[in-house]
Amino acid sequence: MSAVRIGVIGAGNMGADHVSTLHRFVSGAEVAMVADVDEERAASVAAAVPGARSTGDALALIADPDVEAVVIAAHDSTHADLAIAAVRAAKPVLCEKPLAPTTAACVRVVRAERQAGGGLISLGFMRRFDPAHVELKAAVASGACGTPLLLHCVSRGVSSAPGCTDEFSVTGSAIHEFDTVPWLLNSPVTEVSWHAARPTSTVRGLRDPQLMLLRTADGALTTVETFLNARYGYDIRCEVAGERGTLALAGPARLVENADRARSTAHPADWRPRFADAYRLELQAWTDAVARKLPAPLATALDGLTATAVAEAVIASMKDGGRTVAVQVPEV
Amino acid sequence: MSAVRIGVIGAGNMGADHVSTLHRFVSGAEVAMVADVDEERAASVAAAVPGARSTGDALALIADPDVEAVVIAAHDSTHADLAIAAVRAAKPVLCEKPLAPTTAACVRVVRAERQAGGGLISLGFMRRFDPAHVELKAAVASGACGTPLLLHCVSRGVSSAPGCTDEFSVTGSAIHEFDTVPWLLNSPVTEVSWHAARPTSTVRGLRDPQLMLLRTADGALTTVETFLNARYGYDIRCEVAGERGTLALAGPARLVENADRARSTAHPADWRPRFADAYRLELQAWTDAVARKLPAPLATALDGLTATAVAEAVIASMKDGGRTVAVQVPEV
Amino acid sequence: MSAVRIGVIGAGNMGADHVSTLHRFVSGAEVAMVADVDEERAASVAAAVPGARSTGDALALIADPDVEAVVIAAHDSTHADLAIAAVRAAKPVLCEKPLAPTTAACVRVVRAERQAGGGLISLGFMRRFDPAHVELKAAVASGACGTPLLLHCVSRGVSSAPGCTDEFSVTGSAIHEFDTVPWLLNSPVTEVSWHAARPTSTVRGLRDPQLMLLRTADGALTTVETFLNARYGYDIRCEVAGERGTLALAGPARLVENADRARSTAHPADWRPRFADAYRLELQAWTDAVARKLPAPLATALDGLTATAVAEAVIASMKDGGRTVAVQVPEV
Amino acid sequence: MSAVRIGVIGAGNMGADHVSTLHRFVSGAEVAMVADVDEERAASVAAAVPGARSTGDALALIADPDVEAVVIAAHDSTHADLAIAAVRAAKPVLCEKPLAPTTAACVRVVRAERQAGGGLISLGFMRRFDPAHVELKAAVASGACGTPLLLHCVSRGVSSAPGCTDEFSVTGSAIHEFDTVPWLLNSPVTEVSWHAARPTSTVRGLRDPQLMLLRTADGALTTVETFLNARYGYDIRCEVAGERGTLALAGPARLVENADRARSTAHPADWRPRFADAYRLELQAWTDAVARKLPAPLATALDGLTATAVAEAVIASMKDGGRTVAVQVPEV
Repeated sequence: MSAVRIGVIGAGNMGADHVSTLHRFVSGAEVAMVADVDEERAASVAAAVPGARSTGDALALIADPDVEAVVIAAHDSTHADLAIAAVRAAKPVLCEKPLAPTTAACVRVVRAERQAGGGLISLGFMRRFDPAHVELKAAVASGACGTPLLLHCVSRGVSSAPGCTDEFSVTGSAIHEFDTVPWLLNSPVTEVSWHAARPTSTVRGLRDPQLMLLRTADGALTTVETFLNARYGYDIRCEVAGERGTLALAGPARLVENADRARSTAHPADWRPRFADAYRLELQAWTDAVARKLPAPLATALDGLTATAVAEAVIASMKDGGRTVAVQVPEV
Repeated sequence: MSAVRIGVIGAGNMGADHVSTLHRFVSGAEVAMVADVDEERAASVAAAVPGARSTGDALALIADPDVEAVVIAAHDSTHADLAIAAVRAAKPVLCEKPLAPTTAACVRVVRAERQAGGGLISLGFMRRFDPAHVELKAAVASGACGTPLLLHCVSRGVSSAPGCTDEFSVTGSAIHEFDTVPWLLNSPVTEVSWHAARPTSTVRGLRDPQLMLLRTADGALTTVETFLNARYGYDIRCEVAGERGTLALAGPARLVENADRARSTAHPADWRPRFADAYRLELQAWTDAVARKLPAPLATALDGLTATAVAEAVIASMKDGGRTVAVQVPEV
Repeated sequence: MSAVRIGVIGAGNMGADHVSTLHRFVSGAEVAMVADVDEERAASVAAAVPGARSTGDALALIADPDVEAVVIAAHDSTHADLAIAAVRAAKPVLCEKPLAPTTAACVRVVRAERQAGGGLISLGFMRRFDPAHVELKAAVASGACGTPLLLHCVSRGVSSAPGCTDEFSVTGSAIHEFDTVPWLLNSPVTEVSWHAARPTSTVRGLRDPQLMLLRTADGALTTVETFLNARYGYDIRCEVAGERGTLALAGPARLVENADRARSTAHPADWRPRFADAYRLELQAWTDAVARKLPAPLATALDGLTATAVAEAVIASMKDGGRTVAVQVPEV
Repeated sequence: MSAVRIGVIGAGNMGADHVSTLHRFVSGAEVAMVADVDEERAASVAAAVPGARSTGDALALIADPDVEAVVIAAHDSTHADLAIAAVRAAKPVLCEKPLAPTTAACVRVVRAERQAGGGLISLGFMRRFDPAHVELKAAVASGACGTPLLLHCVSRGVSSAPGCTDEFSVTGSAIHEFDTVPWLLNSPVTEVSWHAARPTSTVRGLRDPQLMLLRTADGALTTVETFLNARYGYDIRCEVAGERGTLALAGPARLVENADRARSTAHPADWRPRFADAYRLELQAWTDAVARKLPAPLATALDGLTATAVAEAVIASMKDGGRTVAVQVPEV
């Protein structure tokens, strides 16, 4: 079986990581081409892969006959148009989340994919491939904790990017939970509300942390804390409390240190070490599916639309004093 | 310094525990008398203490000249009247929580205490003496986590008592958090809302678990999960997330077991082992204060009124679809 | 029941802690007198207890008619003679470990006690009252881990006292394990060997850490690491590995902190916070037994002699290249 | 860069796992052929890989022109001869540990490799690629715990294979520690002693658990517990205690469960889940080196000889009452 020839759009941190992972660790994948609006950056990332070409033109990459499948890791605002171009070229796409920041844009993508015959777009909700999340889902499904009733999710980072907005906390960060929670429970989010604590003074003009309540169709209630400027480290938690017990993610630390009057384990500085294995396994699963022309076991474009619909409901609650808002997923 | 002669009203689990603790482990305390509506039960509990008498008449205990100070551990509904009787007899009282299930009854007690000159009533919010909670408060005050922004409290038990109601989850269990949170933060609860998950099917007719949001005057936001029928064990958690980091209660387990493919620590079956030391230290602090005729460093009648006012607001939210309700502490 | 009138010999850290604990937290105990070779220090410690007297003469304290029972917390070298004086005065004694640094001296004490009728001396191996050690012993006895085969003990401190010697690591620190291990297993230590790692360079002229192997009569093998200058904190560990699983002491931390890229729990700086409750419970159990004229449930003089015999065997191994040495407990 | 064509000898658990890992998860590797004395087993394992052939003749695999590099995962007793055959065919070899059960056999392999020009043999001490062990080594090297003084290693499994001997505990299991410890410390093992606890009664005729002391040239002292029938789970621990603190492997669990009065994390049943990632990374590193004709960053034949020399010294101690034995690595 010859390797899948992959084009990667976006040569920032995320794109460069994908190129490196595909090249070094994914069986059956070859990076054929790298595109970035910053052509030099594309060239520099491509240079690490023998035989890979680079371009400043993402559409050229999509059109290139040597590119069989496309990874989109460019700016969020470009995802929808690039995904549409790729499906029109009949090429499988792995698009970083979010599919698009608005449901309207997501709907355009889903329609384009359907017109192209369907099944081409995968969405990079990589937590679905994180071994800890996978174990959690399997354990919940096994009934180990009984019927799930309450979930507590915590998502903390060290600091937000410059220019971060209250809405971005939702569409760029909490959106992971909007996908993970229904995936864990096999039940869609139907109702949300948004609540703010006193904002941290360490960054100006941002409602951070935020607290969201999600209600799923099965009646379970989820609390989501999103705290981009928690300072102390990157820390992702999820506990499912059920009728018989609870199941939670364990911390990912590999070492215990005793020093300076403390026993400690380290927090990563950002998501990259925490989810490196999730990204690798996601890219491997996607590559395997593309090679075998099988449906990819990743989140779909519809999952992407659904998560964005939850985000829109949360933002509506944010703008309306924390009112409970029903989630509306547009018919496509 | 001669020992303080103490009368204990109530010879159920809680009262019997107090008698035993006072007798065996509290320096400077002597149990003089035990009262219970079930006279035999009172006699049986008193029998374990050389020299202690018993009675079926709580008011007789309060009036007894050999009783210098009174512990009230009888049914919640009796707390207010007994506390009023004790302060009218000018005797220091340690009353189990709640002071009374309604603010109206609490107000009567506070007024009676004031007429008696004040400073006589202590309230048994024993978590204020739990070494872990004490360390948590000190660490928060030291600035270790920076300004507190979000708190997550979890209170889980194995099973609820027969006849338990939705309201009792609030007035009998969550009331601990209504005292602990403002005590930790030095800031009163101003606003609350109540939210229910799908109820557990393991007990009928009860909204369990419940989730409450508390807002304190300092702007911090607290989530409180109260889950009486969590089955797996008695588990009390609190994490304070601040601008620089977080502080949380560690589990109280003393042993680690490796067996049957698992590394585990035990959960207690109920609150008694978890808070045995807190009760001992509370009773010691109260006894010391009574002996020295100093103000007791326990929660006051006003603290009891305040916690009950928060409970009333939570119940109002419960009865009004989860609406946000402002806490009204009656002027006394 | 009137309080037991106790005289405390030694007003250093240990003695002062005992005075404070007896006075503040032990039911049925009263500190009648404090003795120290430094008379001012004795007076200063006694001053915190209303009604307590002080003296520079330990024998005067023992002889004092108002002193019913004696705690010996003076320098190790004085333990034997003071204990003998107390038993000759027919007064119950709680002597800090070691009973004496040599078996010869221990034998003198045991004989004197026997001549006085026996049962007067208790030894301050306080770990027998540490709630975690008590739970560990009960769990082992319950068969939770199956027949014990291997034990791993670790005893680490921040720094050794000035003038500490290789032998003191054994007689002053590891002696705790020499009592704890046979107490846990109900089986005496029969054979030992001593092994040194490269010594830490942070203190000069001391073999630190040391590693000892203990074999008990039941065939179990124990490793003991004694590391007085471990720097990072005071850390006592014990794991019992049996035929079905293992049981170990959990860390005693009450708080978890997330800060500065780490999740951490604190180590105490020395033994005092770690074993404060063990000392309290030991003093309470001793006081109760003295008041009721019952045998005290503490380690006995014979236990003290036995532990010192193990220490002598370990030191013999130390001086003979780590050879295996049989433990010889003198017949008394 | 075209893929490296790999032949795998041995189609038991280990060989089959390697075939699967190479095929599914190693970038740049292709399984060309599988050999096993049981030809059907070889065929069955090869069948899962499109294009892979199978054979009952390991030497035919080595000689096959389509096989560029060889993985040896057959019975321990065959390792040496197969490795010699492979190096004589000038093909890179990844040989599972041990290189051979005796130093004499190891010496033959090292000599044959040298005659072939050197650098062809890698040894499957996969812990060198376990992310936790890699972090531990890096942290020790960074000085985080100060100069290492004492190490405690524990290696426990659920049950030993039928026919297991006292010697196999050393050559088949503890040999991992004989490689890991000097690799962690950058210092060879110079002296050892062997000690047995009372053997578990759950298996007959085996000294299990065993305790070994290793002294390295740098003066550090290591305890190694090898307990093949620990029953409760597969549990690998290592703590390095240094002059400033300690560093230890954290448990690998990904989930925390609260159920049935316990908080627990799972132990794996054997080494496969624990070290799956280590094997993958080892195979990837080896494949990358073969592809680039660079020296492989794995343990070498000389490392294999050295570990076997330590094992021989331990066995000599076992047979001589626990005497301290110097490690003799034969000159080659």
